[in-house]
Amino acid sequence: MEKGRILLAVTGFHPQRWHELLSAERDVVLEPDGAKDPSITYAVVWKQRPNLLSSLPNLRAIFSIGAGVDHIFADPGLPKVPIVKVVADNLTQYMTEYVVWRVLDHHRQGLLYRLQQKKKAWHDPPQPPAGDISVGIMGFGTLGRAAASVLLSLGFKVNGWARGDKPMAGVSTFAGEAGLKPFLNATDILVVLLPLTPNTQGLINYGLLKELRKRNGLGGSVLINAGRGRLQKDADIARALDDGTLKEASLDVFEVEPLPKTSPLWGHPKIFVTPHAAATSDPAHLVPSMLRQMDAFERGEKLENLVDRNAGY
Amino acid sequence: MEKGRILLAVTGFHPQRWHELLSAERDVVLEPDGAKDPSITYAVVWKQRPNLLSSLPNLRAIFSIGAGVDHIFADPGLPKVPIVKVVADNLTQYMTEYVVWRVLDHHRQGLLYRLQQKKKAWHDPPQPPAGDISVGIMGFGTLGRAAASVLLSLGFKVNGWARGDKPMAGVSTFAGEAGLKPFLNATDILVVLLPLTPNTQGLINYGLLKELRKRNGLGGSVLINAGRGRLQKDADIARALDDGTLKEASLDVFEVEPLPKTSPLWGHPKIFVTPHAAATSDPAHLVPSMLRQMDAFERGEKLENLVDRNAGY
Repeated sequence: MEKGRILLAVTGFHPQRWHELLSAERDVVLEPDGAKDPSITYAVVWKQRPNLLSSLPNLRAIFSIGAGVDHIFADPGLPKVPIVKVVADNLTQYMTEYVVWRVLDHHRQGLLYRLQQKKKAWHDPPQPPAGDISVGIMGFGTLGRAAASVLLSLGFKVNGWARGDKPMAGVSTFAGEAGLKPFLNATDILVVLLPLTPNTQGLINYGLLKELRKRNGLGGSVLINAGRGRLQKDADIARALDDGTLKEASLDVFEVEPLPKTSPLWGHPKIFVTPHAAATSDPAHLVPSMLRQMDAFERGEKLENLVDRNAGY
Repeated sequence: MEKGRILLAVTGFHPQRWHELLSAERDVVLEPDGAKDPSITYAVVWKQRPNLLSSLPNLRAIFSIGAGVDHIFADPGLPKVPIVKVVADNLTQYMTEYVVWRVLDHHRQGLLYRLQQKKKAWHDPPQPPAGDISVGIMGFGTLGRAAASVLLSLGFKVNGWARGDKPMAGVSTFAGEAGLKPFLNATDILVVLLPLTPNTQGLINYGLLKELRKRNGLGGSVLINAGRGRLQKDADIARALDDGTLKEASLDVFEVEPLPKTSPLWGHPKIFVTPHAAATSDPAHLVPSMLRQMDAFERGEKLENLVDRNAGY
């Protein structure tokens, strides 16, 4: 089998680096060219234009830029070819850095110390050890488990929740709808790394946040969302912070991105905002694994890290 | 041998919890009582009054509250009995949390993101992966090695510097005066965990900071001091930040503590100040190991974790 040609279908940013790196080994057609082109075998995509992919008669596989694939499923005319997820050490590492950074900043009271510094106040507040704090990770796949492993080495207790049971040494795991309430009731710092699917959309709402553990002396529970913005209800998070249900939050994602200037989340004193920057897809790390998979596929091997269409991720 | 009596000699804070916990198993004499008391076998101390310990005719050992022992050596009349250092999992864990927290906050550009949030700016700056950054730890004993291990698991390159060579898997180690310049030249983020001795006092000065690595794209080197304040020259740090030698600093310790309200470090936009709070001695964790050592000593066993008087730590 010949080396298949690639359509690079990206909206929202310029894929120059992706183009350069993919072109080094294969023919690449860049949008807006490529529609209906029978010579195209693969599509490498980020938020592709609707009904573009279904126009390609010989498309064999879709490769996602970015860890989530909800941007691909948004296409009503999505053809039924295999979809390959990004699984890159680099992406996992960035996400682990972000999760551990935010957990430690809330745990070690960064917000309080920055306020004290403004007032020139030399005051050492009570500090629980990590072993008194349970970090609960929702979405316990590659990213969640990598973060869990570093959090365990720092001494935190770790809970993991996923659709199905995904046991891990040293972690209390919970599964499915029945496991959700017990998981939340045992969690002080909630880390959201879920995929966005019809089942998870809007899941992080006021009712769910109410179930988080609130213990004396710890000052309240914390939310960290580094998954997808539409998992959460922005307004519910503000409400939970304002009435003390939540102590603080770190949000990398929002219902609408970029976060509109009019959003009250920007100026909320208990929210730390990052611009969907927890883990950026670095083409230098991701392109080689895409090209390797295409080569293997053309030798008759199976594609790896395929999306489960029923689950939606 | 009978259970020896303890003198609790603390200045600067009220040792109520220490008193309660030690008293559960042994007779405890609390300052200002106890001077010249022949019934006293052990002293548990934090910044003891000068010449108090030398007045005790039957003192057999001194136990330090806190990881450093410079506060004990400040006593000109210090008797020549063994000094036991604190080595507690708890203290090591707190320090590891602090070091990893501060390294990640500088690495992941917390300062920049907080400024962007104020301006409601949705902008994703370039982010080097941890593998591009070398964290150099000065003082590579129990605390330094524990922090190194978590930093390695996050993907950072780690350098260690100590008086003598202290190899560790995955870490580039450097030793003594000859190793100092090469260590600094290979370090982007400097973490100071040194003991305070006549050799280390004032070591963290402008000339030393000048030797840190400055590479394109990383935005400059970073200082984190969680050791002792008199290791550093406060004014040199401000100078290095102002002329771009340093990009940012996290300081838990200062030449004078509490940090005077008049110090320019409080309001410096590139400095994050904590009030000597990186790792607090928790009596509930430390007293049991002190009592265990006293029991062992009275059974004829050797004391552990002794201070080397020549080295001063």
